[in-house]
Order: sequence, then C-alpha cells, then structure tokens
Amino acid sequence: MSTIRVTVWNEFLHEARHEAIRAIYPEGIHGCIAGFLNAQEGITAGTATLREEQHGLTQEVLDNTDVLLWWGHMAHHEVSDEVVDRVYGRVMAGMGLVVLHSGHASKIFRKLCGTDSDALRWREANEKEILWVINPSHPIVQGLPEQFSLPHEEMYGEPFVIPKPEEIVFISWFEGGEVFRSGVTYKRGLGKVFYFRPGHETFPTFHDKNIQRVIINAVRWAQAPKEMPRVRLGENPDPLMPIRDMQENTLGKLGGYDAP
Amino acid sequence: MSTIRVTVWNEFLHEARHEAIRAIYPEGIHGCIAGFLNAQEGITAGTATLREEQHGLTQEVLDNTDVLLWWGHMAHHEVSDEVVDRVYGRVMAGMGLVVLHSGHASKIFRKLCGTDSDALRWREANEKEILWVINPSHPIVQGLPEQFSLPHEEMYGEPFVIPKPEEIVFISWFEGGEVFRSGVTYKRGLGKVFYFRPGHETFPTFHDKNIQRVIINAVRWAQAPKEMPRVRLGENPDPLMPIRDMQENTLGKLGGYDAP
Amino acid sequence: MSTIRVTVWNEFLHEARHEAIRAIYPEGIHGCIAGFLNAQEGITAGTATLREEQHGLTQEVLDNTDVLLWWGHMAHHEVSDEVVDRVYGRVMAGMGLVVLHSGHASKIFRKLCGTDSDALRWREANEKEILWVINPSHPIVQGLPEQFSLPHEEMYGEPFVIPKPEEIVFISWFEGGEVFRSGVTYKRGLGKVFYFRPGHETFPTFHDKNIQRVIINAVRWAQAPKEMPRVRLGENPDPLMPIRDMQENTLGKLGGYDAP
Amino acid sequence: MSTIRVTVWNEFLHEARHEAIRAIYPEGIHGCIAGFLNAQEGITAGTATLREEQHGLTQEVLDNTDVLLWWGHMAHHEVSDEVVDRVYGRVMAGMGLVVLHSGHASKIFRKLCGTDSDALRWREANEKEILWVINPSHPIVQGLPEQFSLPHEEMYGEPFVIPKPEEIVFISWFEGGEVFRSGVTYKRGLGKVFYFRPGHETFPTFHDKNIQRVIINAVRWAQAPKEMPRVRLGENPDPLMPIRDMQENTLGKLGGYDAP
Repeated sequence: MSTIRVTVWNEFLHEARHEAIRAIYPEGIHGCIAGFLNAQEGITAGTATLREEQHGLTQEVLDNTDVLLWWGHMAHHEVSDEVVDRVYGRVMAGMGLVVLHSGHASKIFRKLCGTDSDALRWREANEKEILWVINPSHPIVQGLPEQFSLPHEEMYGEPFVIPKPEEIVFISWFEGGEVFRSGVTYKRGLGKVFYFRPGHETFPTFHDKNIQRVIINAVRWAQAPKEMPRVRLGENPDPLMPIRDMQENTLGKLGGYDAP
Repeated sequence: MSTIRVTVWNEFLHEARHEAIRAIYPEGIHGCIAGFLNAQEGITAGTATLREEQHGLTQEVLDNTDVLLWWGHMAHHEVSDEVVDRVYGRVMAGMGLVVLHSGHASKIFRKLCGTDSDALRWREANEKEILWVINPSHPIVQGLPEQFSLPHEEMYGEPFVIPKPEEIVFISWFEGGEVFRSGVTYKRGLGKVFYFRPGHETFPTFHDKNIQRVIINAVRWAQAPKEMPRVRLGENPDPLMPIRDMQENTLGKLGGYDAP
Repeated sequence: MSTIRVTVWNEFLHEARHEAIRAIYPEGIHGCIAGFLNAQEGITAGTATLREEQHGLTQEVLDNTDVLLWWGHMAHHEVSDEVVDRVYGRVMAGMGLVVLHSGHASKIFRKLCGTDSDALRWREANEKEILWVINPSHPIVQGLPEQFSLPHEEMYGEPFVIPKPEEIVFISWFEGGEVFRSGVTYKRGLGKVFYFRPGHETFPTFHDKNIQRVIINAVRWAQAPKEMPRVRLGENPDPLMPIRDMQENTLGKLGGYDAP
Repeated sequence: MSTIRVTVWNEFLHEARHEAIRAIYPEGIHGCIAGFLNAQEGITAGTATLREEQHGLTQEVLDNTDVLLWWGHMAHHEVSDEVVDRVYGRVMAGMGLVVLHSGHASKIFRKLCGTDSDALRWREANEKEILWVINPSHPIVQGLPEQFSLPHEEMYGEPFVIPKPEEIVFISWFEGGEVFRSGVTYKRGLGKVFYFRPGHETFPTFHDKNIQRVIINAVRWAQAPKEMPRVRLGENPDPLMPIRDMQENTLGKLGGYDAP
C-alpha cells in the first residue's frame, strides 16, 4: 500500500496571540496533528498556515496532497477565494478533506455544503461532551470505545444547517442540554469529506488519544481509490446505439449556444 | 389553503435570436410556464428575465415569492453574484426552487449543490427520451402514468456530478444508450430544491401535458410549511441544564474570538 | 380535503395490570391518542387492541385505514404473523404507519426495517429527556418550539440498530448522558413510516401538548397521495422500443422458471 | 492484510435441468464465480448449494465466512427459514452479503430490505444491457470503464420496490426502453449488502471480465472492519452522568415488563 500524503492546514493565529493556548499547542494545532499522523505507518504529513504565501496551499502542494485537514476559526474571511477554488478543484478531482471544529464556517466547507454550515448554536462554558458512536462498522470509528468523553469543550448545538449527511458517525451530548451531529460524511465530485466537531483551541482536545484515533482513521478513509474509471463529460456526439430519426428534426442545432 | 406565489425566471435569449424557437414559445419559455401555472387553482405566477433590471429579481420580488423556477442556458455568467446571493438567501429562509434543464449549470444551482453540477455528458441529436417514475408515492408524480416519453430531446447522460440526491423521482432512458437521474430533490437550509431535466429550447417540451403536470406538482411540493419552529442560532450562553464545573476552567474565554 | 381515517393500535395490557398506569390512561393509551386525534378537523380515529379478535385488525379494518399507529411493549410475540403480514401488505400499498416508543421492537417494525431494530440501550430511571428539532422545515415539526422536554421518561440510547433513516426529525438528549435518534422516517413500498421514541407507559407523555402535536402532524404527513401512477410489475413482454436481434438468441426461454 | 473468506451460494438447479445452461456453466454458476475469486490474491472462496444438507450453510460454515454471495431463482421457497435466520444473524454481526440477479426475490434479501424487493418489471428478450457507472470513486467500480455492456441479458425494469439505497453504483439501460438501479448498497446491522443485477442463467454473464471485476471489488468492499467498537445493547442501569431526581418518581419500575 502506498503512502498517504497529508497536508494539515491551520489558521495559526490563536496560538500566537494567547500564551495559554500556546502552552497547550507549542507547535501549533497543525504541528500537534502532523506529529501524531507522522507517527503512523503509511502516512506522511506536512503543514500549511494562513500567513504563508498563498496560505501555504500552492497548486504544487495541493497536487501532492491526498488528504487535506482544515482548522480555522477567527480569520475565515482572510482566506483568498483563489485558494478556496484551488482546494475545491482538488476535492472534485478526488482529494480527501477533513474539516475540524470551527472549520464548519470556513469558506471551503460552506462552498462544498451548498448551505449555511456556519449556522449552529454555540456556547463557551467548558462543559463536558460525550461522543456516541452511532455507526460502529464505519472505518472512522475502528479501535474506539462505543463512546468517549472530553471533560471540557465548547458546545455546538443543533440545528446545524448542513445538507443531509451521507453518513452520521458520531452524535454528541453536551452537559448543558444540547446534542450535535459531530461526525458526518459527504462525497463531493470524486472527493470524500469528513466533518469532525471537537477541537476548540482552549482545550487539549488534539492530545486526546480517541480524538487522534478518529483523525488517523479519517485520513485513511478519505483517500481516493487509485483506479477510478476515466469518465468523459461534456459533449459526446457519438451515440452507443443508433438513433433512428435524427434527420427528421427541423430545428436541429441552431448554433450560438454554449454547452448546457 | 393560501395561494402559492410563483416567479418563473427565464434567460429569454434564445427566443429572441431564433425564429424557430420563437415559433415554439411565442411568449417565451417563461410565458408558457407561467401560463399553465396560472390556470391552476391556488397558484399565481409572475415572470422575470435576465435583461430586466436586477434580472427582475429584486429583494421585493423574491420576498413575495414562495417558489422560484429557473431556466437558463447560454448566459449563466451574466447573472450577477449579488442576485445569486439574494436567491440563495431566500432558499435558506424557505423559498422553494425548481431548476429546469440547462439550469443545472446555473450559478445558483451550482452554489446550492456544492459540487460541479454543470458536469455531465450531452448530445443534441433529437433523440427519444423515456422518463420512468421510480418513486410512485412521491407528490411530484401524482397524476402521471408510470412512464412517459418525449419524441425528441437533447440528451443528458451520467455521470451527473451532483451530490447524492435526497430523493430520486425520475430516471431517463435515451435512445442513443445513456441514462440520467432526471428528477432529484434536495433540502438546503429551510428550502426545498427540485431539479428536472427535460426542456431544451428547440423542442416543445413545456407544452407537453405530462411535463406540465410535473412542474405543477413540483410547485406545490416545494412550498415551505407555514409554522416552522423558530430556531435560535449563534451564541446561546444559557444552558438548559446546569453545568457543574464552569468555574474550574483555567482558560475560559480568552477574548478576541469571533463566533465559531 | 378528504378525512384521514386513523386506527390506533395498542397492546392494552399494562393499563389493565397496574393501577398506577390506569390512573394515567384511564381509557388506555389508545383511548388517549384517539381522543386528541378525533378533536382535530379532518381526522377520524378508531382503535384496536391485542386481545380483540385478530387483534382488531381485520382486513376490512385495515382496508379502511389510511394511517395506523402502533404501541406495544411486553407482548410483541403474541401478535400473530398473519396480522403482521396483513399490516405489512397495507403499508406496501400505501397505508401510513406511525410506530410509538417500544413499538421499535414490534414484529411489524422489525419486518419493515430489515434489521434488529429491537436492539438499543435502555434504562428506567425517570430521567429528563430533551427533544431537539433538527429538521425545522419538516411537516412533522410544524407548530413546535425548537426543542421541548419531558421531565421523566425511559431512556433509549444509541446505537439504535435501524437502517439509515431517510430523514431524522428529532434527536433526544437524556440526563444520564445518552443521545438517541428519536424521530426518523422511512418509505417502504408505497407507504410512509415514522418512528417516534417517547411514550413509556408509566409517564403521562401522551398528555403532553408537544407530543400530541407531533403525532397529529405525523398522521397528516403519513397519508398516501390519492393519484399515484398505476405501476405494472411482473412480466412485461412488450418492449417500448424495438429489440433488434431477439431471434438470434439460441437459448431463449427454456421454460420451467418462475418469475425472477 | 488477512485473507477474505468467501462462500458462493447457488441454487444449482438450472444447470442440472438444462443442457444449454450446463454448457455455459459446466461447474455451475457457483463454480464459475468461486473460480475467478480464488484466482485473486487475498481471497479464498468455497461454495454451497440448495440441495446440500442445510443448503451447505451450517453455522460453522457461516461463522467462517466473511462475505457470502447469493444466486437463486426458481426455488427461493425451498430455502428453510432456519437457514435464512442464520444468514441474517451473521449479516447483523458483520458478514458481508452480495446478492446476484434473481436473488433480489430471495427470502434473505427480502428480509433485509423490509420491502417487496421481489417486485419489478422483467422480460426475457435477450436484449442489450448497458451498465453506467454513476459513482466513479466507489470502491466497487475501480478498474472498470465508465460504462460497459452485455449483448444479451434478461431485462429488469423500474420501479424496483427496494428501500432507498444508501449508494447507487450502477444504472442500467435496456434496449427495449427500460432503466434499472443495477448496483445498490445497504448497511444492515454491522453488515454491508450489495445487490448486483446482471447474471441470468441463460447467458455467459459471469464469464464477462467487467462483471468479474465488479464481483471481486464487491467482495473486498463488503468485508467488515476488524476493530469495531464493542457496543453494549440492552438494559444499562448505570448513567454516565448523575440523574438528580430518580427518587422522586412514584411509578418507577412496576415489574412484569420485558425489555423494550
């Protein structure tokens, strides 16, 4: 089996501004995640951040990325539309995308959802979150217990304005009374997309072994197959079967049209 | 039951340029569709077209539209992003949207899909299309036969790069050997979306009684309920249930964050 | 609009055995539910119970039922397979079915699920349940608040071994830490099916105004359309389009086969 | 990677009765399929047939089967309910199931569907079938062209009375004018299920290289993960979080109930 090439993208602003957050993630959230991914056999992970040139996501970087992870929070609006379109194009072509926590409001996830995925309830009250596995034979939950909890997290509550997920993997319980579809999958074009809720920057969530297991599994799950059928899209004038009365038509091609 | 307020939007360029098309739709495609909708009890339909001010889709028009129909083909790029965002906002708030034929490549449908819905196979060879009902208890197929055909249509063939439909209502057979998911539904935000394939401008498709029945049914189906729960999104600091150890947290709210 | 004919089926054993339950439902759970349904315009509700002849579900009763409600708990095994098959046949033909609470383990719901829908976690600890609306434009939640709670209910927890729901309408939060997909929809044949979790017999759940609103809405939602396309299934020797080389085949129909 | 243990089940009656069919499948359909599976690395395939003791599907055989393939046609009614329940139980526990052609009407597939999956249109006219890949990044279509055809097959046409598939992989076009959802997936319990349409006994369909590729891919796809979370179902009296007013309840556990 060939190596999965991962790029971990992080906004990397909170860690710089707040000493308390830097204490949790001295290498940044991206450094933490790339660290545990690189410790896995068959995965090689690099990083990219907002303030790098082109946010670190040049065409070359993306062309050599099988699965992209995305963490952003306070500066979604700073991500250039050009880079968003580039990431989107790669997802259409089969790159996997794992969106973490407040990445639900990122430009790229909203573009892929086609709905107001930034809309949900939230509360910062350091409350307990319990994540329940509701799809135990899904590849993303392998090696996990049937539920696990995080002692303190930001709350996200329903309704979460996402399209109907293709699969729901986790549902979260919050101490203050809310519930949330915490792990959901989509396909967009040839690419697989996984959204995973936990990961607020003020908590050591990405140091949690269960959280790490989910992210490692998600990376393996999101990789595209290697032998996809070559599909011809666009105009295809050659019918597979004979069409009997083409010549009878009086309107035919009138010209001046673009492709449908 | 209250009246459903419909706006039929049409690009209205082909009818102006080609006499042969004008002969089929002397009032424009929009005029034809608004005509048969207005003949229905409980539906009142107006029209809007590309070359009108704001494409005829002012905020006031949209605020008074329960269901919008969209036909466009050669000039999708001429539709302003501002109007697209306005239509999108209304769909989020519950307006129904019925996208017809080459509207699959419109800015608004692509934005709502979150994938390259303009991508498909196509051929103009005036071939026969048979539409099969695969969901006979769906409201959109009431009053139809189990299948019906159009003697000449443009072909659209799979793969059609759309998100997995919430419901598939029709699958089309084409004489030249292709198949297509011809009627598919989605929910986006509070709004219902129906895409319906037939309707190439060089054929009298919108004069067909079965096609008219589908569009009439779709308009009734797409209307939002009147008593939707009022949902509070965004920050909600008041838990429904007491949270025990909020005070124990050492990081708490660090300030300087935007909403997730 | 024509009247919706409802039959409320109840096991009706707990009410007979336990005075405390009889005090909550003096007319039985079925009597309570039929009562508030009959107070609605356009709905007429009868009842049927386990110990009646054929459990009260003769072919004639079912043929005159548009929507059947099902509450059972301790005596699922006493329901005869013949009656289960009769109910199943009516669902295939378009009868709506609303399954309440412990009806998830009934023979009919398990037959329609095709999976072990009796399997879930549970606990009788009189704990608080909060039901969150996650699909605010669904007909079943019209007129409800965005969430509502029941002060004491039996807990049902994930994983709930059901097929992937076509729609999830509610997710429940329980005080003891569990979550549950509390309102889910399916289509089976031409019939619509809604499973709704609350309703343990030791609590006055069916007297709750929000619960009643859900059940009333579900009845209206579950009714089949009146003009479904007439579908021909089985052998259909007449192709719509000519088949060129039928005569070339050397095997053809060998005889002795049943239908596929 | 460990070996996938496959059992290919075949009715094996047509091959015995008709010399023309025996000429196509001298080892039986099961022998043909087991043959090309055993030629794959990492797959080991055995066979079982209707007229063997317990239809060849003892508990021991099933306990040592990761993926079961099922071909049946004229004698579905001869399969004992006991064996059907045994297969069903193994699917719940994670065994994969690949149902071929007329197996759509088998007891086991109908039980897993929960709907009248035997109901569809059909015609034996030796017509051409074209299978279109509509989900090019699905594991089951890897290594295939975007479409492939079979010169002569039995026709199956919509509407096919199945539950909404979790994924549609293929849609078929038939020369006589019909369409069909030819490759569909479900999850039931922990098990994955794939239905694949082609394979009428009078044609050499299972000798076709594309058909063989689909079946090989489906076997790999249907295998359950090895590290599924251990899930506790049934009564669970211990809440994860304290419940405040358990003692306040006056009804409590009344006794005499079975599990919900």
